[in-house]
Amino acid sequence: MNMQGFSSTISTEPGLSRNNEFYFGLVLAISSTAFIGSSFVIKKIGLIRLNRRGALRAGSGGFGYLRDWIWWLGLITMGAGELANFAAYAFSPASLVTPLGALSVLVSAILASKYLNENLNLLGKLGCVLCILGSTVIVIHSPKEETVESLDVLMERLRTSGFVVYCVIIVSLSFVISFYLGPKYGDQNVLIYIALCSGIGSLTVVSCKGLGLALKQFFAGVEDSNGWLMYLFFITVVICIIIQMNYLNKALDLFDASVVTPVYYVFFTTLVIIASSIVFNEWSSLEGEDILGNLCGFLIVIIAIFMLNGFKDGLPPRHKSDENLRSDRYQGYQSILTRSI
Amino acid sequence: MNMQGFSSTISTEPGLSRNNEFYFGLVLAISSTAFIGSSFVIKKIGLIRLNRRGALRAGSGGFGYLRDWIWWLGLITMGAGELANFAAYAFSPASLVTPLGALSVLVSAILASKYLNENLNLLGKLGCVLCILGSTVIVIHSPKEETVESLDVLMERLRTSGFVVYCVIIVSLSFVISFYLGPKYGDQNVLIYIALCSGIGSLTVVSCKGLGLALKQFFAGVEDSNGWLMYLFFITVVICIIIQMNYLNKALDLFDASVVTPVYYVFFTTLVIIASSIVFNEWSSLEGEDILGNLCGFLIVIIAIFMLNGFKDGLPPRHKSDENLRSDRYQGYQSILTRSI
Repeated sequence: MNMQGFSSTISTEPGLSRNNEFYFGLVLAISSTAFIGSSFVIKKIGLIRLNRRGALRAGSGGFGYLRDWIWWLGLITMGAGELANFAAYAFSPASLVTPLGALSVLVSAILASKYLNENLNLLGKLGCVLCILGSTVIVIHSPKEETVESLDVLMERLRTSGFVVYCVIIVSLSFVISFYLGPKYGDQNVLIYIALCSGIGSLTVVSCKGLGLALKQFFAGVEDSNGWLMYLFFITVVICIIIQMNYLNKALDLFDASVVTPVYYVFFTTLVIIASSIVFNEWSSLEGEDILGNLCGFLIVIIAIFMLNGFKDGLPPRHKSDENLRSDRYQGYQSILTRSI
Repeated sequence: MNMQGFSSTISTEPGLSRNNEFYFGLVLAISSTAFIGSSFVIKKIGLIRLNRRGALRAGSGGFGYLRDWIWWLGLITMGAGELANFAAYAFSPASLVTPLGALSVLVSAILASKYLNENLNLLGKLGCVLCILGSTVIVIHSPKEETVESLDVLMERLRTSGFVVYCVIIVSLSFVISFYLGPKYGDQNVLIYIALCSGIGSLTVVSCKGLGLALKQFFAGVEDSNGWLMYLFFITVVICIIIQMNYLNKALDLFDASVVTPVYYVFFTTLVIIASSIVFNEWSSLEGEDILGNLCGFLIVIIAIFMLNGFKDGLPPRHKSDENLRSDRYQGYQSILTRSI
């Protein structure tokens, strides 16, 4: 990434070549995971401090935290992370940005063990190393350029039967889950609500990429007959995020974060890759060995996340009702939730 | 690998292109790990059967095992594996064949859990998957062709100051260890004897590759003024293997196989990569991202072997004197020892 590319950012970037865009997006994606991962720990430090002072009581309506600079620091870090993440989607393929979300789990695990004295045992440390190695393999093999360069092209892609079928499947599945499967089996099988969150999440990412493209065109002063798509994407992003958060919280109420985090990572990333390969054709330029490499990297990261989350008590994770397991859930799920925003 | 390449094998291969040679060597390397990994389990099954029948007593001079077909099957499997491994070195870069040796640990772990009821817990299974994933990443990024195509060129390379210095370092280090460091600190630090085995092992591999090249030339009827190198390589291989086995057994007498196996894998593979990159220039054609990919794959396999060996009792491995640890050592060390033959 060169400074020229940095200073032009979204607004103009006439001199930002495709290759530079990729690395610019990569740097944004990695820094967003650092911001988001650390924001959880910062916010928790703030809350612990406030609790100790007695300034914050749940339900008592206290706003003491608003006067605490650490709480604000956490909020700002989080905001910076989300912004960087959104921008990363505008510059790099979604099948690069989404899998890298795993790094925020890593960052918060490391910082929590350092500043919150949380347990990071040998397996957790191995998980951290594997997370970095798997992410590196993904970066090496990820698609380096995209085929959709304007809203006109994007509009064409959104109308292809492939994406229409995908949307219909996701939306109908979401209705089936929220009205039938969820109430009936949602508390028995972790996959039910996770499937809904991940499906909707993949639409969030597609909309985010569309919004990013629209904003890039808008700020570059490009006239486009499909300029109205910007508003459609914005509304879609907001609606999708609300649905996602709602059902992810349901899943987390029913199951331990150590189960939800890896399962959600797998489903969310897989569906984002499918959706964005339909719309943005990201994988069309990849050779067989890059696809294989991507798959390996993805599986390695899944194992890494599992090791980071699943062995805190030296046992494989079970249903939440298993009282042997602690539920310090903040560590993983939020960081993964926010990858979709 | 095509059948044409298969039928021509070592003898003639005029039609075996460089790319085909690579895949032929890859298939040989993978099948050798399958043979070697299963040979340990087969031999152990045979020995258990014989022990049960009372036909074999240590030190009593019984040759009952010679009449047992399972014991013979184990021996033949082992021989086939070693032959395939040697041939793999003749066709593929050493920095591909050596790291893949990890797969034999995987094969014997899986077969032992299936046929010998040995414990393969969740971490062991994750280690198996990681071993395959890491090996795949190594294969994707490994050098695809070699620069040394004749004994004349090899002779030049062996005379370069780089390799002469490497040999002097390894041989002097070996003397220092066997006469001074070994007797004094060998029982306190696992690295001492492992360093000796690995250093000598890297010379074994270089000699193996040289011998393979000499044999290929010999069978192809190529006249070469350096034909005498074949005998030199053969003698070197035999001497190096004897030294290696001797000191590896010493290390295994002093430390648990769950410590020796991963440490030996790391040292042996690293030194083979260094030695063969000096002599065979294997890495010269690689780009930065292939080197990074190789490194990632190698580190992933190291973690995988550690997980396969280190958590059999749910604890990280300690010095052998720690009585909490079992020492079912057969599983790993032999398979790694034999990778050098």
